[in-house]
Amino acid sequence: MRVALLAGGTGGAKLGAGMQEEIGSELTVIANTGDDIEALGVHVSPDPDLATYWLSGEIDEERGWGIRDDTFTGFERLKQLGAPSWFGLSDRDLAACLYRRQFLADGGTPTAAQAQIARGLGVRAKVLPMSDSPVRTKVLTAAGRRGLQEYLILDGGQPDVLGVELEGIEAAEPTREVLEALRYAEAIVIGPSNPVISIGPILAMPGMREAIAASPAPVVAVSPYVAGAVVKGPTDRFMAGLGRPSTAAGVASLYAGLIEAMVVDEGDPESPPAEIPTLAAPTLMVGAGGRARVARIVLDYAATLAA
Amino acid sequence: MRVALLAGGTGGAKLGAGMQEEIGSELTVIANTGDDIEALGVHVSPDPDLATYWLSGEIDEERGWGIRDDTFTGFERLKQLGAPSWFGLSDRDLAACLYRRQFLADGGTPTAAQAQIARGLGVRAKVLPMSDSPVRTKVLTAAGRRGLQEYLILDGGQPDVLGVELEGIEAAEPTREVLEALRYAEAIVIGPSNPVISIGPILAMPGMREAIAASPAPVVAVSPYVAGAVVKGPTDRFMAGLGRPSTAAGVASLYAGLIEAMVVDEGDPESPPAEIPTLAAPTLMVGAGGRARVARIVLDYAATLAA
Repeated sequence: MRVALLAGGTGGAKLGAGMQEEIGSELTVIANTGDDIEALGVHVSPDPDLATYWLSGEIDEERGWGIRDDTFTGFERLKQLGAPSWFGLSDRDLAACLYRRQFLADGGTPTAAQAQIARGLGVRAKVLPMSDSPVRTKVLTAAGRRGLQEYLILDGGQPDVLGVELEGIEAAEPTREVLEALRYAEAIVIGPSNPVISIGPILAMPGMREAIAASPAPVVAVSPYVAGAVVKGPTDRFMAGLGRPSTAAGVASLYAGLIEAMVVDEGDPESPPAEIPTLAAPTLMVGAGGRARVARIVLDYAATLAA
Repeated sequence: MRVALLAGGTGGAKLGAGMQEEIGSELTVIANTGDDIEALGVHVSPDPDLATYWLSGEIDEERGWGIRDDTFTGFERLKQLGAPSWFGLSDRDLAACLYRRQFLADGGTPTAAQAQIARGLGVRAKVLPMSDSPVRTKVLTAAGRRGLQEYLILDGGQPDVLGVELEGIEAAEPTREVLEALRYAEAIVIGPSNPVISIGPILAMPGMREAIAASPAPVVAVSPYVAGAVVKGPTDRFMAGLGRPSTAAGVASLYAGLIEAMVVDEGDPESPPAEIPTLAAPTLMVGAGGRARVARIVLDYAATLAA
């Protein structure tokens, strides 16, 4: 079953890892690039790399991000020389982002760079940056307009979100590879990632909603809410910033007109509106077994919709 | 005693470390940048960094280059992703060269970048790149024209040297900082580095020989030959490539008209021509004590010339 999975942060990446266990190379992860940032002299692409590290099995599962047992020798040296210290990268992560920067400087695309990184790490699924054009998510707060990483790290994700701007979104377009993945998919799954800053930029690209609608595949969203709360990250502040309730129904409202069905957690007190077919199931992904189990639930449900 | 030391490879850097023990911040090392290379997405400046690591005490003394006990985690990852593998950098070295690349990309000069690196590592002496303009040493061999690092690493320094070209040398000029160090020096010392590829590019910059001649300081060269042979590196091939004998006299011929005196190894079978005042002394630098001892011999000798 060929699946296109839209993913941003940890939830979507974990579901991707589970799906790769189930369908291997038939999985294509379409990852948000609105979090990309130039830092420490390298090009960091947090969401595509997060998906890649989950898929390669190198992820620090406990933390949910970063490479397990990696060192920070290079970063410590950079700090010692006077580089900004707020954005840290472990040695292998730094090297991959350095590789990417040089790859781009040599005229390569983000898509080709990511493919090379994933190949080098033995990933079976495809990881596609949503676009080869730069998009930068900015967070509007009472203290001003911040880069997303600044908001998450420097501000600790604490200030209220007044709004979100997607710099460059008008000029960004889904890549040929993304469009093909959607066209040939047998299921399109929106992962349980932050709907505003992780999935939002992917859907906001001109032509993206149309491409999803044009695909014959059923479109299923997996709610990031488990037992009434998100597992990780400041999703609620972003939902509030867009005037949406912090519930599966709030998520569904952001995907209105796009999704045909939704998978929600069986322990979630709130449900999407009745007009959206919904499967309630245990969606908390604990360990490799839990990830594969949730992936199988989502894939089986999508198969019933396609039939 | 304010000293300007011209240095390239290991010999000159070791003498610099010894001099720093003797005169601390009164030492300025003027380092060759003809070896600079863009590799792995970073800007490598081998000779200024070699001097810096000897002065900071981080050097791997046994090997003569590189940082002691450093790891290669980043480089291994870069290779895994498909980066060229012939030019390796340890993690701290890679980070410094990444720092330099970004510093330059942000509009800073090589001089300021090196000062920042040396400061970060607690170096007391000054380390000055010879120029802020790019110079790239090329080696002519029967197999073609090679970059210096390619010749040294890929070719193992084995092919006969037919000649040396210094790309960019006509447009390069000594920096203001270099000119000031020469003007205010009480001794100018040419370190025991390869006279062709380490010292040669420094002296070949337009205006450099004139600036040295205009300084009131005595100019003393230290021969890289110890007991008839160089301690390290393919100096002989380069001497032969320029049609010079592999002796202190050959070295002296390259510095003709520039130096007032020379320090040679007391065990060296060959002497410079009689018209050059020469001090024969034990010049092999073994350990910190040996480096300081040779430094003291050179400084004392220079002091007699200045008087």
